[in-house]
Amino acid sequence: MDALLKFVALLFLVTACQGRHESLYSTPNLIDSAYGSLWPLPQKVQTSPVVFSLSSASFQIVHSPESSAGPNCHLLQNAFRRYFEYMFGFMKKQGRYKSALASEVLELQVWITSADSECDEYPTVSSDESYELSVDQPTAVLKAAKVWGALRGLETFSQLVYEDAYGAKSINKTEIMDFPRFAHRGILLDSSRHFLPVKVILANLEAMAMNKFNVFHWHIVDDHSFPYQSPTFPDLSQKGAYHPYTHIYTPTDVKMVIEFARMRGIRVVSEFDTPGHTQSWGKGQMGLLTPCYSGDTPTGTFGPVNPILNSTYEFMTQFFKEVSSVFPDAYVHLGGDEVDFTCWKSNPDIQKFMSQQGFGQDYSKLESYYIQKILDIVGATNKGYMVWQEVFDNGVKLRPDTVVELKPDALIQVWKGNEEKYKKELASITAAGFQTLLSSPWYLNRISYGQDWQQIYKADPQNFDGTEQQKKKVVGGEACLWGEYVDATNLTPRLWPRASAVAERLWSDKDVTNIDDAYSRLTQHRCRMVQRGIPAEPLFVGHCNHEYKGL
Amino acid sequence: MDALLKFVALLFLVTACQGRHESLYSTPNLIDSAYGSLWPLPQKVQTSPVVFSLSSASFQIVHSPESSAGPNCHLLQNAFRRYFEYMFGFMKKQGRYKSALASEVLELQVWITSADSECDEYPTVSSDESYELSVDQPTAVLKAAKVWGALRGLETFSQLVYEDAYGAKSINKTEIMDFPRFAHRGILLDSSRHFLPVKVILANLEAMAMNKFNVFHWHIVDDHSFPYQSPTFPDLSQKGAYHPYTHIYTPTDVKMVIEFARMRGIRVVSEFDTPGHTQSWGKGQMGLLTPCYSGDTPTGTFGPVNPILNSTYEFMTQFFKEVSSVFPDAYVHLGGDEVDFTCWKSNPDIQKFMSQQGFGQDYSKLESYYIQKILDIVGATNKGYMVWQEVFDNGVKLRPDTVVELKPDALIQVWKGNEEKYKKELASITAAGFQTLLSSPWYLNRISYGQDWQQIYKADPQNFDGTEQQKKKVVGGEACLWGEYVDATNLTPRLWPRASAVAERLWSDKDVTNIDDAYSRLTQHRCRMVQRGIPAEPLFVGHCNHEYKGL
Repeated sequence: MDALLKFVALLFLVTACQGRHESLYSTPNLIDSAYGSLWPLPQKVQTSPVVFSLSSASFQIVHSPESSAGPNCHLLQNAFRRYFEYMFGFMKKQGRYKSALASEVLELQVWITSADSECDEYPTVSSDESYELSVDQPTAVLKAAKVWGALRGLETFSQLVYEDAYGAKSINKTEIMDFPRFAHRGILLDSSRHFLPVKVILANLEAMAMNKFNVFHWHIVDDHSFPYQSPTFPDLSQKGAYHPYTHIYTPTDVKMVIEFARMRGIRVVSEFDTPGHTQSWGKGQMGLLTPCYSGDTPTGTFGPVNPILNSTYEFMTQFFKEVSSVFPDAYVHLGGDEVDFTCWKSNPDIQKFMSQQGFGQDYSKLESYYIQKILDIVGATNKGYMVWQEVFDNGVKLRPDTVVELKPDALIQVWKGNEEKYKKELASITAAGFQTLLSSPWYLNRISYGQDWQQIYKADPQNFDGTEQQKKKVVGGEACLWGEYVDATNLTPRLWPRASAVAERLWSDKDVTNIDDAYSRLTQHRCRMVQRGIPAEPLFVGHCNHEYKGL
Repeated sequence: MDALLKFVALLFLVTACQGRHESLYSTPNLIDSAYGSLWPLPQKVQTSPVVFSLSSASFQIVHSPESSAGPNCHLLQNAFRRYFEYMFGFMKKQGRYKSALASEVLELQVWITSADSECDEYPTVSSDESYELSVDQPTAVLKAAKVWGALRGLETFSQLVYEDAYGAKSINKTEIMDFPRFAHRGILLDSSRHFLPVKVILANLEAMAMNKFNVFHWHIVDDHSFPYQSPTFPDLSQKGAYHPYTHIYTPTDVKMVIEFARMRGIRVVSEFDTPGHTQSWGKGQMGLLTPCYSGDTPTGTFGPVNPILNSTYEFMTQFFKEVSSVFPDAYVHLGGDEVDFTCWKSNPDIQKFMSQQGFGQDYSKLESYYIQKILDIVGATNKGYMVWQEVFDNGVKLRPDTVVELKPDALIQVWKGNEEKYKKELASITAAGFQTLLSSPWYLNRISYGQDWQQIYKADPQNFDGTEQQKKKVVGGEACLWGEYVDATNLTPRLWPRASAVAERLWSDKDVTNIDDAYSRLTQHRCRMVQRGIPAEPLFVGHCNHEYKGL
């Protein structure tokens, strides 16, 4: 933290009690974190006051001779370039130094220690992201079993580099041993309420990597539009997107997003939410949705997916077969939230079916009937699935009849309720033996005046009443940015650095909770994001040395 | 409004009751406004179903032969180019048509009817912004007494142009007679809590012109930084800015902002707030601030401007002399808000002065003493002044002893309190015979989840208990975007289109209050801003044909 920022801190103490700019949140004390600008904080950091120089003219990121990965690993080559540029900007090399300074880091050796670097694989929920980083002169060493750990370590290394008062790049002698606390650290973006240009998605994947997030939960379609272009059912986007050419994701777009994410160790989990949230599906797939009735007459409007027709399941079988091959991730998110029963109740055919099945008036049984069949369909593609908590709450049987040993477990995403309620839900889900993810406190679409990142930061997915075994069933969490009020104009600053607070909660040790220390590091981390071209909004009064250059 | 948007509307009715995305605000009914995308709504609009074409190859904006302004009026020439580009993009002319269509608008004639067009003047609070627009073929005519009305009419004309289903530019036969309801329609930006790059300020002036705002209230300095570079006192920014070179406004920057604003009919009112909110002044002007004491010992910290020293008033005399020549506007905003008395109370010299003056323990008398002297200093420069409401509340005498006939009246800006309180304040100020501006309901830095533009839109500066004469004392209002949580990364989408709601309240007739109609027009107006390069955020679910291209 520089002196000007401290000056601001002092001023704040003077003016904090004034009325014009009050907010709900208290302001942290401004301190100078011993951990510099590291974010999220690694598990173990030992720094020394010894400072080394780095020169853009001589510094190199190279494969260690012992590494199982080499120049053929494009993922690492690409990351080397990316982080070199982050650290040194786009400065031209001025010709190589003849002789290095005595205390200069000349290279960072990246050493993949396992025989299989996984360079050409997709990341999974069990990918090894651990790494060890030793910064010394003339050689710094980054050791990781797999490329995933190397990516995380490169980000950490780049965060250790700073400019001294003369603008010279410097780094302290440091030892870091690091691994994530949770395996699933996600961001949900919603490309249905508003279409998000691919450029915006890519920029946010870039920002995710800066924060060590590893899952992009792509809520790709919903009631409002169907931008996913399906080769099998092209009418879905042709008729269901906001515009059939300008507001869709072509197969090429989707591939690009997945590969861009993979290069950053990020999984892409697609969500195709049914049976509710499907109005846009009905435009391009006649007969899929339930016709609503007023008395004996169809009203011309439609409700959730029609769960009583064979054609529905034939469509879904083909559709999810495609989805499971387009998206390589081991999981598909099947939604299952917020099903409104009004239309089902109005439909005489559905009523008849209910009584045939002996469901009485309990429409959640019909919902479960539907979801069960979808789970079986997706189960047959050998994918695991994620679902919203209602699917568990309504008692749907979440394991397929034939348990396949290698198939991933169901993952239940908790999104409802205040702190008391979501803690209870986490306890119930894990007591029932299921894996779970927390999102309730991290609905970042909800905004309020002031430093709400603190509240986001304080939530902890394992802070509920349960056994150690239950706690282990918590695989992580996701920050969600629903799309009602965001599009390309405001998404990125609304998401960052508020999502960074979630990133540290999910990566760092559970005891990393000091708000003052977090404020110091996060303020610098957000300026770093700005300098890297991400319009991350300010936490509070102050400035960055390099302000955002865009609009 | 296009069909897709209507589709979204329908969907919303289906999903509005669901829990995940609830907000405090209700959602308007989606209708198709008879007024298209006009924003703010002109005073009188008569449209006809008769449609004319416009061709980028043949359409021209020209000076009417009768006009008092001609090609030497750079302000208009510049506006012609700007609006031509807005309407036709940057399409190359494809060669002039040999023969025009029967129903084509070939030119817009701009006719300044008054002998003095005011082309080279600065706009003032009494500038005539009225205009009449007649769209017919082959010639449309825009009549205005002064260039200011012509600027407003050009914006309106550009809002009438739309693309038909084939992408052809079209405009309906239309008659418009228009003038603003209030003379002062402002936006406050704060360049002290965060430095705002000039580029950001210019983009927001551009957006202001699209919304017919006419005052940029530049809250240029405050406690946190002093980015205004003063030729007389260069140390103020040298020591008081976040950075003495990268985070300041040079005289050239200030000139550019003022001229860019003038070309758009926007006044620049600078605010140099004293005696509180001045911590940053103290860095570059030793002895200006009050030393705070703990018992008999100075603490090393400083409070408000020291009101008991002659040197203070000598400094202020020189400083405001400079300010009054740098900023051509007839008004300077002198602040006067939120003075914290703690430090004054602690200082033994101030205590002695209080007792000499017979102020007792009433420090608001000391504040008034100070403000009175500042008003006299500024009064001597022949400027009028704006002040925050505290100056009135504390009983400062607001007219100088020697009333100069031509000097503008004091203008009191109301910013405190909820609806009940600010209405009372408006009533008191106007009952005392002073002119006033409303800002309380328009603190746009305060954000909440959902369509808060509706609440912003509903507030009315004349809706208080008072006589007609009192109502006339309300000169207008200002939307304020204080800078604690905004900088270049998020300012523009946070301001727009929420400030547009204020724009219509201050321009259009007081009976223009239909939320459904406003929603229809504003949704289209925000997409137009996006297409013109302003990242105005969405009001709700939907899309623009041309989404934002930036990040």
